[in-house]
Amino acid sequence: MVVEASHAEMLERHKSAALDDILGQQFPVLDHGFIRVIDYMGNDEAVVQAARVSYGQGTRNLRDDRALIRYLLSHSHSTPFEMAEIKMHVKLPIFVARQWIRHRTASVNEYSARYSLMDEEFYIPGPAAIAEQSASNRQGRGQVLAEEAAGAVMEAMEASAKGAFAEYKRLVAEGGDRQSAVARELARIVLPVSCYTQWYWKTDLHNLLRFLELRMGAHAQWEIRQYAEAIAKIVERWVPHTWQAFADFRLERTELSAAGTKVVRGWLAGEEIAQEESGLSQREWDGLCERFGRGSSS
Amino acid sequence: MVVEASHAEMLERHKSAALDDILGQQFPVLDHGFIRVIDYMGNDEAVVQAARVSYGQGTRNLRDDRALIRYLLSHSHSTPFEMAEIKMHVKLPIFVARQWIRHRTASVNEYSARYSLMDEEFYIPGPAAIAEQSASNRQGRGQVLAEEAAGAVMEAMEASAKGAFAEYKRLVAEGGDRQSAVARELARIVLPVSCYTQWYWKTDLHNLLRFLELRMGAHAQWEIRQYAEAIAKIVERWVPHTWQAFADFRLERTELSAAGTKVVRGWLAGEEIAQEESGLSQREWDGLCERFGRGSSS
Amino acid sequence: MVVEASHAEMLERHKSAALDDILGQQFPVLDHGFIRVIDYMGNDEAVVQAARVSYGQGTRNLRDDRALIRYLLSHSHSTPFEMAEIKMHVKLPIFVARQWIRHRTASVNEYSARYSLMDEEFYIPGPAAIAEQSASNRQGRGQVLAEEAAGAVMEAMEASAKGAFAEYKRLVAEGGDRQSAVARELARIVLPVSCYTQWYWKTDLHNLLRFLELRMGAHAQWEIRQYAEAIAKIVERWVPHTWQAFADFRLERTELSAAGTKVVRGWLAGEEIAQEESGLSQREWDGLCERFGRGSSS
Amino acid sequence: MVVEASHAEMLERHKSAALDDILGQQFPVLDHGFIRVIDYMGNDEAVVQAARVSYGQGTRNLRDDRALIRYLLSHSHSTPFEMAEIKMHVKLPIFVARQWIRHRTASVNEYSARYSLMDEEFYIPGPAAIAEQSASNRQGRGQVLAEEAAGAVMEAMEASAKGAFAEYKRLVAEGGDRQSAVARELARIVLPVSCYTQWYWKTDLHNLLRFLELRMGAHAQWEIRQYAEAIAKIVERWVPHTWQAFADFRLERTELSAAGTKVVRGWLAGEEIAQEESGLSQREWDGLCERFGRGSSS
Repeated sequence: MVVEASHAEMLERHKSAALDDILGQQFPVLDHGFIRVIDYMGNDEAVVQAARVSYGQGTRNLRDDRALIRYLLSHSHSTPFEMAEIKMHVKLPIFVARQWIRHRTASVNEYSARYSLMDEEFYIPGPAAIAEQSASNRQGRGQVLAEEAAGAVMEAMEASAKGAFAEYKRLVAEGGDRQSAVARELARIVLPVSCYTQWYWKTDLHNLLRFLELRMGAHAQWEIRQYAEAIAKIVERWVPHTWQAFADFRLERTELSAAGTKVVRGWLAGEEIAQEESGLSQREWDGLCERFGRGSSS
Repeated sequence: MVVEASHAEMLERHKSAALDDILGQQFPVLDHGFIRVIDYMGNDEAVVQAARVSYGQGTRNLRDDRALIRYLLSHSHSTPFEMAEIKMHVKLPIFVARQWIRHRTASVNEYSARYSLMDEEFYIPGPAAIAEQSASNRQGRGQVLAEEAAGAVMEAMEASAKGAFAEYKRLVAEGGDRQSAVARELARIVLPVSCYTQWYWKTDLHNLLRFLELRMGAHAQWEIRQYAEAIAKIVERWVPHTWQAFADFRLERTELSAAGTKVVRGWLAGEEIAQEESGLSQREWDGLCERFGRGSSS
Repeated sequence: MVVEASHAEMLERHKSAALDDILGQQFPVLDHGFIRVIDYMGNDEAVVQAARVSYGQGTRNLRDDRALIRYLLSHSHSTPFEMAEIKMHVKLPIFVARQWIRHRTASVNEYSARYSLMDEEFYIPGPAAIAEQSASNRQGRGQVLAEEAAGAVMEAMEASAKGAFAEYKRLVAEGGDRQSAVARELARIVLPVSCYTQWYWKTDLHNLLRFLELRMGAHAQWEIRQYAEAIAKIVERWVPHTWQAFADFRLERTELSAAGTKVVRGWLAGEEIAQEESGLSQREWDGLCERFGRGSSS
Repeated sequence: MVVEASHAEMLERHKSAALDDILGQQFPVLDHGFIRVIDYMGNDEAVVQAARVSYGQGTRNLRDDRALIRYLLSHSHSTPFEMAEIKMHVKLPIFVARQWIRHRTASVNEYSARYSLMDEEFYIPGPAAIAEQSASNRQGRGQVLAEEAAGAVMEAMEASAKGAFAEYKRLVAEGGDRQSAVARELARIVLPVSCYTQWYWKTDLHNLLRFLELRMGAHAQWEIRQYAEAIAKIVERWVPHTWQAFADFRLERTELSAAGTKVVRGWLAGEEIAQEESGLSQREWDGLCERFGRGSSS
């Protein structure tokens, strides 16, 4: 089969010079967290190589790597993107880790508070991140607090976390009325979810893009979005063609439902359409109007 | 093919009367937690039915359901056990949830502290569960504390959790120097990992058995073991043949390495074997001797 | 937490009367294949129930089940759809099985040609399905063949498959120069991929929808599309709200890339845009024009 | 935390010189198949590195990499083994591919017979592999055929496959009563499952070991076992400590059920035990006696 000829020459591992440059380097995230790349396998070329195995002569018209990657990504051909893999070392607060771990197609080794002592490191949001409960979005944040109020919140959070750590330290220490330390796995239950943990996280490029799509989105909590954005910069270095296609076809895409498509088609034909007759809910209608620069009342 | 004939009659869903009896019933675990079965699919018969599709006439010699299940389980035929599914509602402390979620082949919907307020419920271990750090096992517990010392630990844990909840409530309330509540997703970071959460958890029987094998084991933290044992009783009701085979071939099995097998063979042949020449580490040697009732020095 | 109150009453398994009506019933697909539902867990209500656990009071504004399902599906909240499960018995040609099995998040028990004899059943496409190689689409079919030519192809395929089965039967029979039958696992290697196999296939609703999205699509081979369409009718019976949301937001949606969105926005603002300056490839441009009823030259 | 210090120095990708030596090299399997390594990530050190993240100071007593790997593998600590990854190019008959693909935690890009033409290459077993149906094992092979009979089987298989390929070629060619080629996706359905396909296959070390455990086993079909054994040699080069631990603790281990353990304990205590009172089936009893060099009647 045709694929063999071109493979015969391939005797070296795929490399990404731009990623090699930052291997092991810590990129800070939040107040004490970081992300650093430990190792990787493959690059844009590896995606292309895998696609050519599948489609054989069928990819003759898409000789150009960039065009092939754009075609694959925009047509839901996800398997070639699974052929590249990355492993990162991440330090992150427990409440972020709890959101992150929901991405199941990944491998994880986390620091164990059963085996080892926890360092006194916890996340305190900066003033720009302290906001009130959103009125419109039940899961999100609204207005940022005024400086003084934000400062009071930060102080309260810090005092609370420090108190918990002091208790933790008392529990894992000998002394007082105890001759021996309380088991670590037990003592740590007093620690708050703002506490930092760390892990090795390994996933493939396809699943990493899914992670970014969800965690760079407006519905993601601000804190995990900071990690997603740090990873996005790493992905851009590692696989620039894939990154660009992902930005164009996923991050900045517009999705129109059947009804939404009909509305836009109507607009283009010069029809006047009212929300009530559009088949869209008010929320969907407003989103559509905003996306296409139409007044909501039109 | 032969399988069709017997299938033609099958027009009803598989049921487990013993499981139907306890559907929705809360089985308490720890101080405030519980497990209850929400729904399920299949039973022992469903395992057998799936195996007969695969093996067709090949299962003629194992007409008996119980014998077939024992054969499947002891020969690593895992796919038929994937054909039964269960969904549970679980209330559990966050630190237990963090261990539990590592079982990736499962579906989860967890209560969201971003959307909703957290109730003031946290885990405080009872006196029998409060133990010192194990000297021999770096991840585990040793001696239980004396009554008075345990009481002091319980009080300290309770005070710490109550303090955190008081802070949480202040943050999500309006008033004082703030005119508005801090966003829930932010306020909750002060809460400790002893705090209760809840989720729907759905998995198949094969992966549930893997969960039980790991979480009923001696290396699992005592708290998650309480959940595993509550689930074990549910599994016993649901699929009694599978449960019995699992107990015999997994929970209570002995695994001998190549070197361990050689030692036992030698013992049976009346040989005297010293640990140093056995190819086993001291730890492995001690385990083997204990398992087979031999003095370690023999 | 609020969820508990409403759960307390729930003591019965979720049912779908419309699905119960057809349980075990064979729906024919292709010339000898079929699909039939063996068992299931959950329904539209189970999706809603799981979502309400997650979002708690956060779903207060979406009390209506239908609206909540539409919201979940259009906002990529996939986990509640994992809470419903279905198990089917499928008879299908091997080449279709090979495409199907690529959906990895599923459980399978397949009839084994190592254990059991294969029946003489193979797929021969009908005249309407016999088409020439597509000139434009390297993986697809073009023009249907003329009646006479199609007939010749059908005859040739049938003769070829019959010849292979005759050889298979000679190999697994005793007699001639052999005193014993050739092992089944070996004899079967002469059988063509048009040969029918069968399996139990179990997956959750979220992954089933993914299957339908890919396999009902224009790029799927016609034969697997017949199975997908048979399953679609089953899904519509089982979870009518989910099915309708899926049809509106997935099957019939329009996806616009960043550049495509800009073009439509331009059109709506009355701009004249040429393909060359659009940032779209000719193929993308043509697709966009067709979708919105614009002449490609505009 | 302690892990950071040692990580700070790590700035290079893990390498395996022994694997680099054979990168891209084809190792022949069966008559026309092969395996070759395309790329990899990690090595024995990567396993150790990941374990040390989890266990932190807890691994102080197992400073030696080899000892730590043996501990991890014998105690079901599977996640560190997920931290190494390998990608192979495999050429294999379709019936082998169908068994292989059941290992779901892996990524695959397969040559597509919808896009591209299939080469005329099919598997014909050699005389040593042609055996009769096993009388005792319903899925396996028994006695090898006599030379003459084996020769006849080989000829019959070859003639059958050649006939199918001739038909395939007629279908995908223009001419005769057809002016155009039949679509490839349709023409290929006449090809036998002995036909060779090829794919890129990528998995992690943990799942690769699971593959080897099942596919090197006595119940695996001889043909896939040839692939598993070729991969085993690659694994031995890549991660020698892991390979050795795997051989000792998995491949050559003995598993005793609860009842089997009791029997061995009894034997060691000098008891006479009859099969009937052992709680073991005759098959289990025979296996146990053979494993420990006891006459079955004892």
